[in-house]
Amino acid sequence: MTAEIICVGTELLLGDILNSNAQFLGQQLAELGIAHYYQTVVGDNRERLKQVIEIASQRSQLLIFTGGLGPTPDDLTVETIADFFGVPLIERPEIIEDIQQKFAQRGRTMSPSNRKQALIPQGAEILTNSIGSAPGIIWQPRSDKLTILTFPGVPTEMKQMWHEIAVPYLQSQGWCQGIIRSHTLRFWGIAESALAEKVSSYLNLTNPTVAPYANYGEVKLRISAQAESKEAAEQLITPIEQQLKEIAGIDCYGRDNDTLASVVGQLLQKNNSTLAVAESCTGGGLGQMITRVPGSSSYFRGGIIAYDNAVKTALLGVNPQDIEQWGAVSEIVAEQMALGVRSQLNTTWGLSITGIAGPDGGTETKPVGLVYIGLAGSEGPAQSFKFLFGSLRDREWIQRVSACSALDLLRRQLQSRSGK
Amino acid sequence: MTAEIICVGTELLLGDILNSNAQFLGQQLAELGIAHYYQTVVGDNRERLKQVIEIASQRSQLLIFTGGLGPTPDDLTVETIADFFGVPLIERPEIIEDIQQKFAQRGRTMSPSNRKQALIPQGAEILTNSIGSAPGIIWQPRSDKLTILTFPGVPTEMKQMWHEIAVPYLQSQGWCQGIIRSHTLRFWGIAESALAEKVSSYLNLTNPTVAPYANYGEVKLRISAQAESKEAAEQLITPIEQQLKEIAGIDCYGRDNDTLASVVGQLLQKNNSTLAVAESCTGGGLGQMITRVPGSSSYFRGGIIAYDNAVKTALLGVNPQDIEQWGAVSEIVAEQMALGVRSQLNTTWGLSITGIAGPDGGTETKPVGLVYIGLAGSEGPAQSFKFLFGSLRDREWIQRVSACSALDLLRRQLQSRSGK
Repeated sequence: MTAEIICVGTELLLGDILNSNAQFLGQQLAELGIAHYYQTVVGDNRERLKQVIEIASQRSQLLIFTGGLGPTPDDLTVETIADFFGVPLIERPEIIEDIQQKFAQRGRTMSPSNRKQALIPQGAEILTNSIGSAPGIIWQPRSDKLTILTFPGVPTEMKQMWHEIAVPYLQSQGWCQGIIRSHTLRFWGIAESALAEKVSSYLNLTNPTVAPYANYGEVKLRISAQAESKEAAEQLITPIEQQLKEIAGIDCYGRDNDTLASVVGQLLQKNNSTLAVAESCTGGGLGQMITRVPGSSSYFRGGIIAYDNAVKTALLGVNPQDIEQWGAVSEIVAEQMALGVRSQLNTTWGLSITGIAGPDGGTETKPVGLVYIGLAGSEGPAQSFKFLFGSLRDREWIQRVSACSALDLLRRQLQSRSGK
Repeated sequence: MTAEIICVGTELLLGDILNSNAQFLGQQLAELGIAHYYQTVVGDNRERLKQVIEIASQRSQLLIFTGGLGPTPDDLTVETIADFFGVPLIERPEIIEDIQQKFAQRGRTMSPSNRKQALIPQGAEILTNSIGSAPGIIWQPRSDKLTILTFPGVPTEMKQMWHEIAVPYLQSQGWCQGIIRSHTLRFWGIAESALAEKVSSYLNLTNPTVAPYANYGEVKLRISAQAESKEAAEQLITPIEQQLKEIAGIDCYGRDNDTLASVVGQLLQKNNSTLAVAESCTGGGLGQMITRVPGSSSYFRGGIIAYDNAVKTALLGVNPQDIEQWGAVSEIVAEQMALGVRSQLNTTWGLSITGIAGPDGGTETKPVGLVYIGLAGSEGPAQSFKFLFGSLRDREWIQRVSACSALDLLRRQLQSRSGK
């Protein structure tokens, strides 16, 4: 049993909308343990849709359609499917009644064009839409060798129909035997290629599988197991996850929904510590990451966005002579910013960022992408760390990766102190 | 000439990521006037990818691949394409050199696994990746009847390569004849349904078409025209755009790549004014939006993230008795925050946000989603504005929409002062 997702709609081809339905269905099929190897997007065109049905019905046993169930002439999914299998459409009075009731509920009368939505291939069952006017179908046009499900393109309607009707149906057919369960390990401070080499022997495993991904400076390893049950899948994943964590060491900062900010938050809470930030080139992005975490008020006091040098001097106590001598983007200024915000906001930790986010402002000695991060704790002097993020990256990338790098530095300090 | 988009990656099938690359490429092909009728997603699997190439190469003349160009063993797009056409891979020293340089710039050394990315089918041209390590290819494996372009899956890299190299290439081949041109008008402070009713007669136009979209509190109208040339398409769009702007009035804040922050920045620059922000529940998100705009240092001085009440008092001069009497989320505190940051950072404008982003912290009288925005200018007292964003929204939504609403309030003030 393998499934295939077919999304019908010219608006998808034109890029007017994002195909979030395919993502949702992909996740759902994985959780149910139904393999699916292909997704196709095709426009509102009878001939091309027929060709897609032909290809898909040869290589897959469950075809899941979204889109093209509306009342307008360009909605032709169901009639094209019926046509391909040479079966007539039958008007189903219960659908007309349902649509009329839904219109009446909103004080409207049904349009004649909605009658089209009541046409269902002979022999198909109705996949009831409890929200909108477009019902889907459940149909086995050629005995049980091929099953067709259709859903409207509107995500809320599609999802409700999926959960309410499709999932119980698929389970009742005995097609959801195994399940696929995944966990993601998250890494910071190591390149994808370097991590892949460290764990190279794991990348050839078949169950669970281990696959690396990278985005915005973060690297992830996704561990996916196929098994009879959730518990059995977890048992396959756990030892591999443990081994990968040990190999990666401190570069692994979390799993699944963890963020650098949430992990730092947990460590600060554990240590009864508080944090304040001083931001120049990130302009608030570090504070924003920290406060995206619910409950961050228990350890985050706030910060100072010192975008202008005068603010660095007046509010953070940075020595104006040091700015003149070393520049605002320098080790010494990063350290003074961290110390200044720690003292002004009376926290355990002060974390600062000063750098050149571009696209302008770079020089030969201080190129775009040069960032200093300062960290002041309750013991010892402030430290600073230099990063070269490269002038090829855009402003958003440099700002985001700078904020993550600052959080990661604090995380490493907190983890090494707690002996972890 | 018809194109086809083939996205390679098991993570797409599993629904781990949204296929935003297909949306981007679909929009781009439409704008260039290159028809495309199919999109396919296939996993990191040699045999299935070969089957997809076989089907696509029979029905389309331009195959655009994304994904599977990384350094790890499951990245197999280029080798599978070469294998399908029976052509050997050749290691290209210029790619190795380029990757080494990129690693060196960030103070790292290239991993041996990156050598894989230098393997290109014999006869193919390199589609240079100026950001990341994975180059693409431009290849006509069977004379000029079939053209293959490959791009990495990372959206920023793919987009840059598309604009820099692929678009000029496609144009030089004479494949971009008729074109579809689109502009987007951007609105804040009006609901999608209210705007759609105001402009309802325009939503039935056929060329140009007008379509509404909404996301994160922002409403957009996309105006698309099909014509022989860019200029002819623009001539179709311009009068409609003008009429829509007039109907919408001040709710329309910009077009295309404008953001509320960039529009506010332009208005501040025009008035030689400066801005500082005081943020509580947004925790830096307002400053981050402002500083995402290149050149924002000419009008943005910085701000104070007053997450903790003690910071509101100590650094912004908010009266602690007012916090006790009215609460930190109140009109009077928002006003004092705006006045305080304006005076501390010595700017023309002070903009503040205090609210309850949730999920915890709401009460019956002050529910999650209650936000006060304060605005202090050089004349008159500070003003404050109350928003109820609703407790059904999540923390991220409330934080983001609060920051946008603050920028929009300042925009309206600046626009009404400049009589625009």
